[in-house]
Amino acid sequence: MQRIRAGIVGYGNIGRGAEKAIQRCPDFELAAVLTRRRPSELTIDTPTALKLNVGDAANLKGKIDIMILCGGSATDLPIQGPEFAKDFITVDSYDTHAKIPEYFDAMNEASMNAGLVSVISAGWDPGLFSFNRVLAQAILPQGSGCTFWGEGVSQGHSDAIRRVDGVEAAIQYTIPISAAVEKARKGEGEMLSNREKHIRECFVVAKLGANKEEIEKSIKTMPNYFADYDTVVHFISKDEFDANHAGMAHGGFVIHSGKTNGSRQTLEFSLNLGHNAEYTASVLVAYARAACRLHREGKTGAFTALDIPVAYLSAKSGEELRKEML
Amino acid sequence: MQRIRAGIVGYGNIGRGAEKAIQRCPDFELAAVLTRRRPSELTIDTPTALKLNVGDAANLKGKIDIMILCGGSATDLPIQGPEFAKDFITVDSYDTHAKIPEYFDAMNEASMNAGLVSVISAGWDPGLFSFNRVLAQAILPQGSGCTFWGEGVSQGHSDAIRRVDGVEAAIQYTIPISAAVEKARKGEGEMLSNREKHIRECFVVAKLGANKEEIEKSIKTMPNYFADYDTVVHFISKDEFDANHAGMAHGGFVIHSGKTNGSRQTLEFSLNLGHNAEYTASVLVAYARAACRLHREGKTGAFTALDIPVAYLSAKSGEELRKEML
Repeated sequence: MQRIRAGIVGYGNIGRGAEKAIQRCPDFELAAVLTRRRPSELTIDTPTALKLNVGDAANLKGKIDIMILCGGSATDLPIQGPEFAKDFITVDSYDTHAKIPEYFDAMNEASMNAGLVSVISAGWDPGLFSFNRVLAQAILPQGSGCTFWGEGVSQGHSDAIRRVDGVEAAIQYTIPISAAVEKARKGEGEMLSNREKHIRECFVVAKLGANKEEIEKSIKTMPNYFADYDTVVHFISKDEFDANHAGMAHGGFVIHSGKTNGSRQTLEFSLNLGHNAEYTASVLVAYARAACRLHREGKTGAFTALDIPVAYLSAKSGEELRKEML
Repeated sequence: MQRIRAGIVGYGNIGRGAEKAIQRCPDFELAAVLTRRRPSELTIDTPTALKLNVGDAANLKGKIDIMILCGGSATDLPIQGPEFAKDFITVDSYDTHAKIPEYFDAMNEASMNAGLVSVISAGWDPGLFSFNRVLAQAILPQGSGCTFWGEGVSQGHSDAIRRVDGVEAAIQYTIPISAAVEKARKGEGEMLSNREKHIRECFVVAKLGANKEEIEKSIKTMPNYFADYDTVVHFISKDEFDANHAGMAHGGFVIHSGKTNGSRQTLEFSLNLGHNAEYTASVLVAYARAACRLHREGKTGAFTALDIPVAYLSAKSGEELRKEML
């Protein structure tokens, strides 16, 4: 079997996770890692892979079957995505929910023009969660759906705290409220306010001499991020922070509940992730396999998790899947 | 918008559930109900729908967009499926797991020859559970997957008890064992024996004068059905049976757990169903929508839940789904 030659663009937490995920898949090989750093200074785990500067990607045309884009959604992907889609089949986990339609259009145009395929927003949310939301609603259109996140670290909220004056280090955990989860299971999820669904718990290291009361007030009243939630702030030492708050755990659940006549029917999809970035990277590699298959079938343009049969994610044949997994 | 004209073949629990599900979907209309009984004696809930004998199906060619086959898997579908697939787009919930490859081949041939589409095994297991098993394994191929059923009624096991001498009425509940569920969440699901995963609890009404000890022994030692399980048998009165054991609740969960490097990652998909047949029927109607879309795209042959993008189940457009659900 011809192995899928993958390139990883961006060697942060997700890029390193993608390398590990590729090592677990015998139908893949890691052919190259592209970085904005000096390639010679990069230490990777695959001796046979090329290390290149991201600006030299064009040299890889014809040598790479798929580029796994592991950059961030805020600034990397909106530029990198359409650039790479001109020359390569791509997959990414673009996750700025509100801008997905715009990003889809840009990627669709680039991939269409190139006669290639891109798969966008293929992580767990957006991605697996999206697809369970659609599944559940298609089956019970009159039901009520609700998504909870956590318990886990929100990078965006942690960053927001770190921008507060006097903060040296900070991490924010999103914690679903059990009573709300129970309501969602009874079909009352859509009526819940933000405050009713999640608690935001913050662990903050203050700079020496900083006013902790001011910091706490700034956090709790921060619009969009914290003002609409019950927010708990703990001040801790740098030692405690380093010892206990370096984890990457996350997860969450999609609940959809409705009635058929008098009977309640509840679907629930949950992820309990010990390492958010490594799981996201594993999802990306499965969708990389799907992207290559779509291309082999002559498809072009942008696809999301909603547009791809689940069999395309698997290395097994249709016959094997029908026999073993149906 | 042109509505999808559906026919229901077989008006038992699933057929009646399909009628209700169609009523919840504005893009569908129920055009006909086909039965083996005398059509004139059938009372249905849709005054505008035709009532026909199943032998007169040929009269409906060109008047029906999709036939929803609601017969049983043991004897109805193996005959009816390929018959109907010659003339109509079909969807069914064929659920004899071991014979799915054979049924797929028969349906694929019939649909291919007709230039039409059939969707098979589109219930919740096989169906939604299958597709979560494939999804989870594709993402973490080194993980361990496990499916639990219940707490719910197994029709096959209830039927088996009713065939025991001296039994007047019986129902069997399949109950997952919590300790086994916890093991599955730790990635140890594949090592569990049948006996470790589920208890089989039976409520039996004995005929007057029957030997209850003999009945209990016959049940507990029955090969395939009960011998490999811890089976509990309760004898109850017919009144208690009628009052408390007429429910159709069922459900279950697919758990897949594996590690990426040192971190445990667990995916769980669960259904908690107040009415098994009505939920299965709702799944059938969503896949009926998908079957019609596959046909409009010029596809032919048999498909399973593994082969169909989830967006095809939804009445919403790709743009709407990307905006609202991703």
